[in-house]
Amino acid sequence: MAEADPGFARPAPKGRATPFLDLDHDRLLRNLRRMQARADAAGAALRPHVKTHKSLDIARLQLETGARGVTASKPSEARVFVEGGIGSVTLAYPVVRPEALDDLLGAARSRGADVRFIAGDRTHVSALAAAGARHGLVLPVFLKVDVGLGRIGVQPGSDMADALARRLHEGPWTSFAGLIAHAGQAYSAKDADGLAAIARREAEILVGLGGRLAASGVPVPVISVGATPTCLGAPIPPEINEIRPGNYALLDRTALRLGICTADDLALSVVATVVGRAERHAIIDAGSKALSSDGGPHGTAIAGFGLVTAADALHGQEWRVEKLSEEHGFVACGDRDLQVGARVRVFPNHACATVACFEVYGPADADPDAPNWRVDGRSCLV
Amino acid sequence: MAEADPGFARPAPKGRATPFLDLDHDRLLRNLRRMQARADAAGAALRPHVKTHKSLDIARLQLETGARGVTASKPSEARVFVEGGIGSVTLAYPVVRPEALDDLLGAARSRGADVRFIAGDRTHVSALAAAGARHGLVLPVFLKVDVGLGRIGVQPGSDMADALARRLHEGPWTSFAGLIAHAGQAYSAKDADGLAAIARREAEILVGLGGRLAASGVPVPVISVGATPTCLGAPIPPEINEIRPGNYALLDRTALRLGICTADDLALSVVATVVGRAERHAIIDAGSKALSSDGGPHGTAIAGFGLVTAADALHGQEWRVEKLSEEHGFVACGDRDLQVGARVRVFPNHACATVACFEVYGPADADPDAPNWRVDGRSCLV
Repeated sequence: MAEADPGFARPAPKGRATPFLDLDHDRLLRNLRRMQARADAAGAALRPHVKTHKSLDIARLQLETGARGVTASKPSEARVFVEGGIGSVTLAYPVVRPEALDDLLGAARSRGADVRFIAGDRTHVSALAAAGARHGLVLPVFLKVDVGLGRIGVQPGSDMADALARRLHEGPWTSFAGLIAHAGQAYSAKDADGLAAIARREAEILVGLGGRLAASGVPVPVISVGATPTCLGAPIPPEINEIRPGNYALLDRTALRLGICTADDLALSVVATVVGRAERHAIIDAGSKALSSDGGPHGTAIAGFGLVTAADALHGQEWRVEKLSEEHGFVACGDRDLQVGARVRVFPNHACATVACFEVYGPADADPDAPNWRVDGRSCLV
Repeated sequence: MAEADPGFARPAPKGRATPFLDLDHDRLLRNLRRMQARADAAGAALRPHVKTHKSLDIARLQLETGARGVTASKPSEARVFVEGGIGSVTLAYPVVRPEALDDLLGAARSRGADVRFIAGDRTHVSALAAAGARHGLVLPVFLKVDVGLGRIGVQPGSDMADALARRLHEGPWTSFAGLIAHAGQAYSAKDADGLAAIARREAEILVGLGGRLAASGVPVPVISVGATPTCLGAPIPPEINEIRPGNYALLDRTALRLGICTADDLALSVVATVVGRAERHAIIDAGSKALSSDGGPHGTAIAGFGLVTAADALHGQEWRVEKLSEEHGFVACGDRDLQVGARVRVFPNHACATVACFEVYGPADADPDAPNWRVDGRSCLV
């Protein structure tokens, strides 16, 4: 137990049936506007990643606030947003089988939506070219560049980078959309200087490769980057044309740890109820199946599984979820704290992982006149 | 990379759209029969916990194999199984608000199902009594006893144990069903002797408390325990009347670590595809949103997030998921192993957590004549 930052104070939540996702609409909107202002100031298009919130309502709000489209993780997730009426979706995930795009391309055609793809390997390029041929569509494809995460993408100095960009450029079933990267290693940065260095280095790598490609006759229309730590916590380099952060909409304990937001910025918490008392723990009805067991993005970790405050902000103490069972959270606290029946608010380690545990935002017993927003893309694993 | 235990070999999976849960029906059935035989030999009723598989089809199979009913984690989960036609459901989760049972008791009444409850605190007893009064039903309630996990339940030596059992016994809206416990600490046992000691100690505690209650005029109809490590890895003590293990149906890397099963017993794996190659990793399309980030039950952990083999068992190597992003798993392997497009099988750390990430068992592009079984209770967090 410790005195909580007053920025964690929130009004008493509606609904008694717990656990539920409590989305703070004012804070959400503030977060959306802040990132849009950063993108606008940098002259970069904002195409937020929807894997964080998986919500059509929030995606629409992002577009209303100025976003030019959204970014999705899997073909089925992209399809949910295309079918929900989002006009431009970037599928920032590689494809190795042409048939994996049948449903998405069908939906894009019937809705008149623009869908863009990535490739970081020969197989990705071949699969996309085959999918384009299969559907009679020229697919815009970014070359995915590994800028240090060691996950998907070509090495920027490799001959393969040039060869794949040229293949995409030459088509006939692909067009070369530009260079795309995700500096997920920013989640391991030590401080603001570390974040800025990663953002600068990413831009240098992409600009360097872009210049080489252009000089070889392959023009690079767009340079796209995106990770909340660099987009929110570091200057957006002037050479960047678009950004694709996701987490910034909700934020979480990881963003707090990185120093890129304040407690007052967190738009998402989980409201839970104390259902038992043990000697050193209050037991709450949110476990790993509600909070997820994520320490943080990309294998990073914070001690515990969430920061806990009273749900009604009547007092300013904070505790920590120390351990998880599937349906129980163990909140480390004294035996006079948090009695059975008390409601708490858990600020999760990783908002994107927590949202994916739920079907809706808001309590099951919410006001029927104010229906809950859905986690529309929840089950989109394929 | 290492030579894999031949017990991991499985036939090539159907379906190309990955990731998907691959449920091995023969192994499932063998696991169900083995536990049923253990229960029968011990003279104990088997009431399996459905939080593991969340599937009506598997629950029905458990009943066909001899189970007397099932056990569920949350009121909404119990309701799914009542509405699915399961005639007897134990809600092994405490209730602090009477209204939380409205839907479940309504469903039980209309289906003629028998539902049993637990209480380990004054608030639980009061909430159940109020729910019974509200619905005009006498609710059978177990006294939940903490046998060492330090989660939910009365301390067995406390006056509170006697007082709550007496209140449940005296009614009028509750009847005393007996004593119930979950020795989840068995997941931290070092070896078979450790498991056996935990199972014996649990029985001693419950038998001791049961004797004291009976001597004070509160008869104890049933002593119910249940955790897969003790039920599968230790003798079932003769005083035990019923067991409620869950994980035994599917099993996972944690069960392997505990030595309570073999590689050949694992009935669940996740089929995934290599979508990228990095220097030290093959990147697969199953990340934390498909495998979960769980190290194991109750805060236990194994190195990594799953054991990986080739999906088609053509060769006998094994690797480990070393790190997770939301939609990517990082499989540590040499640069000649696991090329882009290869399919792999991931045996997860914690089957219960992995199943909860999916809507169905089987691939999205499965044979339409053999429809996939559903994860019916997937979203039942309330």
